[in-house]
Amino acid sequence: MANTAKIGIIGAGSSQFSAGIVRDLCIAKGLEGSHVCFMDVDKGRLDRIHALAEKITGELGAKLTFRKTTRLEDAIRGMDFVLNTAQVGGHSWTEAQRDMGERHGYYRGLHVAQIGQMLFFLEVAKLIEAVAPNAWLIQSANPVFEGCTLMTRETKTRVIGLCHGHYGYREIADVLGLPCSEVTANMIGFNHWIWMTEFRHKGLNAYPLIDEWIRTRAEQYWDTHRPTFGDNQMSRGAVEQYQLYGLFPIGDTPRFAAWWQNDSLESKKKYFGHLGGFDSEIGWKQYLDVMADHVKEIEKVVDNPSTRAMDIFKPEQSDEQIVPIIDSMLNDKPAVYQVNIPNCGGIIKGFPEDLVIECRGVVNGGGVCGIMEPALPERIISGVMIPRWAEAESVIYAAKHCTHETFLAYVMQDRRTRSREQAEGFLTEWLTDIRNEYVRKNIK
Amino acid sequence: MANTAKIGIIGAGSSQFSAGIVRDLCIAKGLEGSHVCFMDVDKGRLDRIHALAEKITGELGAKLTFRKTTRLEDAIRGMDFVLNTAQVGGHSWTEAQRDMGERHGYYRGLHVAQIGQMLFFLEVAKLIEAVAPNAWLIQSANPVFEGCTLMTRETKTRVIGLCHGHYGYREIADVLGLPCSEVTANMIGFNHWIWMTEFRHKGLNAYPLIDEWIRTRAEQYWDTHRPTFGDNQMSRGAVEQYQLYGLFPIGDTPRFAAWWQNDSLESKKKYFGHLGGFDSEIGWKQYLDVMADHVKEIEKVVDNPSTRAMDIFKPEQSDEQIVPIIDSMLNDKPAVYQVNIPNCGGIIKGFPEDLVIECRGVVNGGGVCGIMEPALPERIISGVMIPRWAEAESVIYAAKHCTHETFLAYVMQDRRTRSREQAEGFLTEWLTDIRNEYVRKNIK
Repeated sequence: MANTAKIGIIGAGSSQFSAGIVRDLCIAKGLEGSHVCFMDVDKGRLDRIHALAEKITGELGAKLTFRKTTRLEDAIRGMDFVLNTAQVGGHSWTEAQRDMGERHGYYRGLHVAQIGQMLFFLEVAKLIEAVAPNAWLIQSANPVFEGCTLMTRETKTRVIGLCHGHYGYREIADVLGLPCSEVTANMIGFNHWIWMTEFRHKGLNAYPLIDEWIRTRAEQYWDTHRPTFGDNQMSRGAVEQYQLYGLFPIGDTPRFAAWWQNDSLESKKKYFGHLGGFDSEIGWKQYLDVMADHVKEIEKVVDNPSTRAMDIFKPEQSDEQIVPIIDSMLNDKPAVYQVNIPNCGGIIKGFPEDLVIECRGVVNGGGVCGIMEPALPERIISGVMIPRWAEAESVIYAAKHCTHETFLAYVMQDRRTRSREQAEGFLTEWLTDIRNEYVRKNIK
Repeated sequence: MANTAKIGIIGAGSSQFSAGIVRDLCIAKGLEGSHVCFMDVDKGRLDRIHALAEKITGELGAKLTFRKTTRLEDAIRGMDFVLNTAQVGGHSWTEAQRDMGERHGYYRGLHVAQIGQMLFFLEVAKLIEAVAPNAWLIQSANPVFEGCTLMTRETKTRVIGLCHGHYGYREIADVLGLPCSEVTANMIGFNHWIWMTEFRHKGLNAYPLIDEWIRTRAEQYWDTHRPTFGDNQMSRGAVEQYQLYGLFPIGDTPRFAAWWQNDSLESKKKYFGHLGGFDSEIGWKQYLDVMADHVKEIEKVVDNPSTRAMDIFKPEQSDEQIVPIIDSMLNDKPAVYQVNIPNCGGIIKGFPEDLVIECRGVVNGGGVCGIMEPALPERIISGVMIPRWAEAESVIYAAKHCTHETFLAYVMQDRRTRSREQAEGFLTEWLTDIRNEYVRKNIK
């Protein structure tokens, strides 16, 4: 009989992750006999995801068992794997914080809003340390980079951060007209800040094909292509970042790597197309609509006994690495994944070993080992990696020490801050907002 | 007989350094019999400093010999010590670059202007490598931090960077009413970015005395004290930096460590007193006037045979560490100095070993060894050290690779840059200016 696992999913009602993960769990042969505990503070969403899981399992005859809880500790105690996909306060509080930022002169909001997330991550990691010390924490909720670093430094909990951004190289292949199956790529950096160090087509360096596309076809593409909100990979913005820093930014990276591409809707449209990319007020609205549709799809399947779940959620493993990684660990099946793990041994030279980086890693029954890579070019290190690290350390420190001064020091570093008064104005409103109780109770 | 040295001084006509150094050289018993070669591209200033040296030597009966040259190599070949105090293009080009920056929206100019300096440093260090490989380079001209790091990484030349900013702790003692002789302090960081880790009065921690002064006497001091241009040590700005980051900023540090204290003359006046501190248009004008007075003093002594040099330049060793360090090396007299040297062994943990830091070091006949210090507080590391390092690496990379893209990537990081067009506008004017020939000829 295969090994079985106890898996806790925090924020199981997550509109972005939950249905796909449930389907991946149900179809994973290696997880037969395992037990999954769903946890969410939103009881309605929790009930639905639990019902969906039961329905899919029933249709497939999968040997999984489920339970549900609104208590965090129930989803952690004694677990082998804990998956954290939770967004503290949900999308509504995220959007409210964004509006608050905009009222104080921060277009599309401030990253300081991530502090609540990071404090919750720490609560989870500490609870794992206490009641499930052998568990692996799989971190999908953002901010993966800063959050995983904070947990790594402050607890003994073993963390793997996961994201799908690295698949962006497939979009490059697609736009270049190369079959994905013939293309491979390596990218490394920090989560949402990864740079493609190798890009091969049939084993040969394919960067020259990108250069040729830029020279001969890019302008026409930008003129005629109508990108969807998430379609930033071959944007004018990404290409400009490549030209300035020397490696192609992958996945979510182009969304963030150049401030001047993002300082207004006008800039965003210039660099990311007519919707202004993922993070504009237009693109983000579409993303939220898609998330709401996901929830509706789940409702449809759950509320309608005659609808087969499998007709909506095809029984195929998704691109999501979460379940395959659990399978690799549980059944000691070595495989290479794109992971966010501590920079042990200096996989990215020049950064602390307790900083969580994104790189390739081999996962097996013993855990995860990062794959050493050639040193990143100096141009990437000085141009983008060190500045991004500087920003990260400031918010990590703010979340760790959680005082008004540390929050202020962080916000003062935001290049959009024009005065101390502006920063204080935002912080005062943010910290006194009734919905920010979670941060407030952590303040020292 | 004591050892003797051959010393080359580049930029010997420097209004800030030259007279004081000449006097220090002449009175140093340990340097008897040594030979000094003055080099400057400004022949008038060169002649005057040479004449001053001859005059002081004559009055003192000092056993030093001098020569002068306008050729760089003459001041380097075969030397034991090379002192670089030169400012490429002099104050006039520095001021012209500042005006140019202001026309493009950069109040008080852009640090990119330092690139010309750094390229010249590299030329000097490479020449030392070629024609005086055993020489020590003593670097007084700015930017010491970035420039010494660049030379350390790109050449084998041994460099010590020197500054007087660390004496700022004496101003703290003075304002607190403590005799300087009873006070000791340690400060560490990067040049012009040093933080006081220890402050003792009669051997006891005297930080509480600073805290008490802030509580009870600071407001009155700021209301009534009329600071001179260089008098930033106990400014409202320095105290605010201390409160935000937890250690007192020393010397030149308060001038730079908080952007919001420096974004307008109004801010500068609020934080640094009625002149707006050293770097305001008012304070800097006074500094330039003082420098011009230095030149006039030298002229007065040199042009007037009846004036005794010693009446103007008292025969007492100044605070400048340059000559004592040469003496320590030449005659193997171990002593502790405040130096800028590579971060070997990780004196400041978490930064590269080839980054030049400012710390205490023991100098003797074997060279210089940094003194290990307790780790800097996380608050300083994340709040100010990493962000400053990020800035430094970007300008070091720009100077090293010297392409339009690297200059642009650097200027885009300046928080005052509002658009790519603004950065390009400045760069185009700067790079095409006839006075910027030195940078232009280095562009790759």
